[in-house]
Amino acid sequence: MKENANREKPCHVLHELLEVLARPWTLHILCVLNEDGPVRFGVLRRKIDGISSRVLTERLRSLEAKGFVFRHYKPTVPPAVTYGLTERVQDLKQVMTDLERLAKTWAEEDVEEPADEISA
Amino acid sequence: MKENANREKPCHVLHELLEVLARPWTLHILCVLNEDGPVRFGVLRRKIDGISSRVLTERLRSLEAKGFVFRHYKPTVPPAVTYGLTERVQDLKQVMTDLERLAKTWAEEDVEEPADEISA
Repeated sequence: MKENANREKPCHVLHELLEVLARPWTLHILCVLNEDGPVRFGVLRRKIDGISSRVLTERLRSLEAKGFVFRHYKPTVPPAVTYGLTERVQDLKQVMTDLERLAKTWAEEDVEEPADEISA
Repeated sequence: MKENANREKPCHVLHELLEVLARPWTLHILCVLNEDGPVRFGVLRRKIDGISSRVLTERLRSLEAKGFVFRHYKPTVPPAVTYGLTERVQDLKQVMTDLERLAKTWAEEDVEEPADEISA
């Protein structure tokens, strides 16, 4: 019997994680939560210029499912729901910082256009 | 005048890189090129079970554009085109290994189902 090659391929778990992180707005949401600590949904949405409530809700659910974001519900009137980063994000941040540093280096290498040094 | 917030957001370069890496097959292509060194297109396609020529071509072009893959053309009859990894991938590999380790740890934490230990 033949094994399913795709199910067994070594990078499956990594691919799944990258897919979540690569979706539009996801990094932006993580950045805002990182800078502004636990915040209410409305505050988060105002800080992310251009995101819709539907997309923000969906992204927060994906990040919750991955264990990067927690949702805290306080049964006040009206109820207060806040979102924040979990402990798990600390490790992710280190790797994302490394990757961002590389991405920036490569982007600079690829441009090689001295935009500020063009003389008239 | 108001600056375009999205253009200026700090994680733009990182997001762009993640988008390329997160696309289906991309990690798989990098893994095969890493293990089997420079290979011809046909060999690469056979090693990646299920990929179409169109998708493989498109992914290789994206990876070339990012400077991760080189394309070597030898004008023999018929011409021999081989694909391999660039030096740049060495740094990427380290970060991807770190991220994969984290992804696996989290996946294990999230499952918490002792699948092998169910007694009859």
